[in-house]
Amino acid sequence: MSEMPVIAVDAMGGDLGPQVIVPAATEFLASHDRVRLQLVGSRDRLESLLAGQDGIGADRLEIVEASQIVSMDELPADALRKKKDSSMRVALNQVRDGHAQACVSAGNTGALLATARYVLKTLAGIDRPAIMSAIPARGGHTHMLDLGANPHCTPEHLVHFAVMGTVVAADLNGLSSPRVGLLNIGTEEIKGNETIRLAGQLLARSDLNYVGFVEGYDIMSGRVDVVVTDGFTGNVALKTMEGVARMLFETAREEARASWINRLGAMAAAPLFRSIRDRVDPRRYNGASLVGLNGIVIKSHGDADSVAFGNALQTALIEAQKGVPTQIGELLEQQRIKLEQAV
Amino acid sequence: MSEMPVIAVDAMGGDLGPQVIVPAATEFLASHDRVRLQLVGSRDRLESLLAGQDGIGADRLEIVEASQIVSMDELPADALRKKKDSSMRVALNQVRDGHAQACVSAGNTGALLATARYVLKTLAGIDRPAIMSAIPARGGHTHMLDLGANPHCTPEHLVHFAVMGTVVAADLNGLSSPRVGLLNIGTEEIKGNETIRLAGQLLARSDLNYVGFVEGYDIMSGRVDVVVTDGFTGNVALKTMEGVARMLFETAREEARASWINRLGAMAAAPLFRSIRDRVDPRRYNGASLVGLNGIVIKSHGDADSVAFGNALQTALIEAQKGVPTQIGELLEQQRIKLEQAV
Repeated sequence: MSEMPVIAVDAMGGDLGPQVIVPAATEFLASHDRVRLQLVGSRDRLESLLAGQDGIGADRLEIVEASQIVSMDELPADALRKKKDSSMRVALNQVRDGHAQACVSAGNTGALLATARYVLKTLAGIDRPAIMSAIPARGGHTHMLDLGANPHCTPEHLVHFAVMGTVVAADLNGLSSPRVGLLNIGTEEIKGNETIRLAGQLLARSDLNYVGFVEGYDIMSGRVDVVVTDGFTGNVALKTMEGVARMLFETAREEARASWINRLGAMAAAPLFRSIRDRVDPRRYNGASLVGLNGIVIKSHGDADSVAFGNALQTALIEAQKGVPTQIGELLEQQRIKLEQAV
Repeated sequence: MSEMPVIAVDAMGGDLGPQVIVPAATEFLASHDRVRLQLVGSRDRLESLLAGQDGIGADRLEIVEASQIVSMDELPADALRKKKDSSMRVALNQVRDGHAQACVSAGNTGALLATARYVLKTLAGIDRPAIMSAIPARGGHTHMLDLGANPHCTPEHLVHFAVMGTVVAADLNGLSSPRVGLLNIGTEEIKGNETIRLAGQLLARSDLNYVGFVEGYDIMSGRVDVVVTDGFTGNVALKTMEGVARMLFETAREEARASWINRLGAMAAAPLFRSIRDRVDPRRYNGASLVGLNGIVIKSHGDADSVAFGNALQTALIEAQKGVPTQIGELLEQQRIKLEQAV
């Protein structure tokens, strides 16, 4: 075996499956020379899509057979019980067995969370994995978690999220001490509910670079690098962002057709609109990390195209190079000791 | 006394106070001939700002003296205890005493909530007022509540919000049966937490036009007319929207300066950008309703200009014409009976 990181790819997951994932994989290998990929799924289907593709890096690509597929609307419990040879499950097994250092899937989020937790187990002290993603923000981006895995959180959960967010933001962004904010409805100490206030007190006593409460605006203001919140609020905030962006772009399209002067303006400003769109292109932010597991699992959007899927692979590669789960385990243990001493 | 609705205006509230509010009031009177305004605050200050303004409707303007001002960062408890002659308090007293049918204030939100609850009292069965605002959405706008007054809600609170939202959306938008959605992290019945699921079951048994769970995208998708959520989630979602819009407009400004081709495009597309901006102009949506009180109270943004403040006055006028608190009281009572019979 070489020491290159290996990424196991659920090649059958997502809305478009291997049609998008195979080209994304071959492009990724052509542009990254220190990584190997395992495409997990139907060997026949994958070989026919790969036929004739002997480009750069084709020797670093391997097919791992899996006979089943988890559908996008399958119940997590059914996926766990009935799909033991699914491309998702086999890709996770590769990580568990040390044959791969990370797994990427565009499949059903609920099934991926449940299967990853079952196959890889969570780190000591962590109940459930959390979902974390980069979000476009002023001057770059922030990382937010949890985005929906844990609708109800205790203060301790929120502290765990802050630790995990710190590690991932440091590794993905090269920051030495990421600024962490706790999402609340005001910045004064008395704001919010008991859970939030207690989590704020715990974080203030930790070694993390905790800056205090932040508000909805700060997800994008660049004031912090990590925004910590429960999975209910985080999921609503994420989908609200997508909704606003979609509505604004749609309004722009409608107004661009509303009069001849607007039509002319839109034509003249096409390069400008493209550069605005590029800055906030959701494809750039594809690849959410499921953190808190004994292994790296990256969730791609189900409707990712090959550019977007490539960004999920990129996130997996960096986390594998840095050894994110080990780092999280160590920082969790340090904070546990620190907080116990403080009590 | 005439039968024209009277609106009591806290003329000293907000970041800019009477400088913005006096011109907004005189413009409003000039363009609405069936309304009277009371400007509450320092008679000297208001008279000097009004000097020479004898335009249309000046005879429907009255000054009501109040010697104190609640500052924007004053604690609600201090405002209640120490500012018994504040412009905010006196304006609310006018509504309580039947001298006005609505009150508008751009002052400190926490102080306004606490003072309004103390002076006007809540409707039978309602613990605390909720904050409700129109939000731009596809094909018009939606109404969302609570936006921050009640960070922790029971299922019954959420049902009350649905009732209050139904009345206000019907009155402000002329809808006969507004569609109500409950904000959640997925649309399946098992999603969310116990509170949300129970509220969903209660709403399904009510007479309201309840369409089920909706997600963050739906605040702006036009799928529903009323989005119901607790004050924590609602406040985060609202500020997230503002943050996204601010970031996108800022990105547009930066990119417009980034190259000569973008600079030219921005110039040619200036009318287009203006029409996009007009559609989502926050000034159009200024004027949140504090619902659940024995009286109409409209909260304007603290930094409202005279156009924005005029929209808050407009909302107050419509709610006064329709008699919103009475309608809410009746619909609450109907639903209470209906839900008790169902149990």
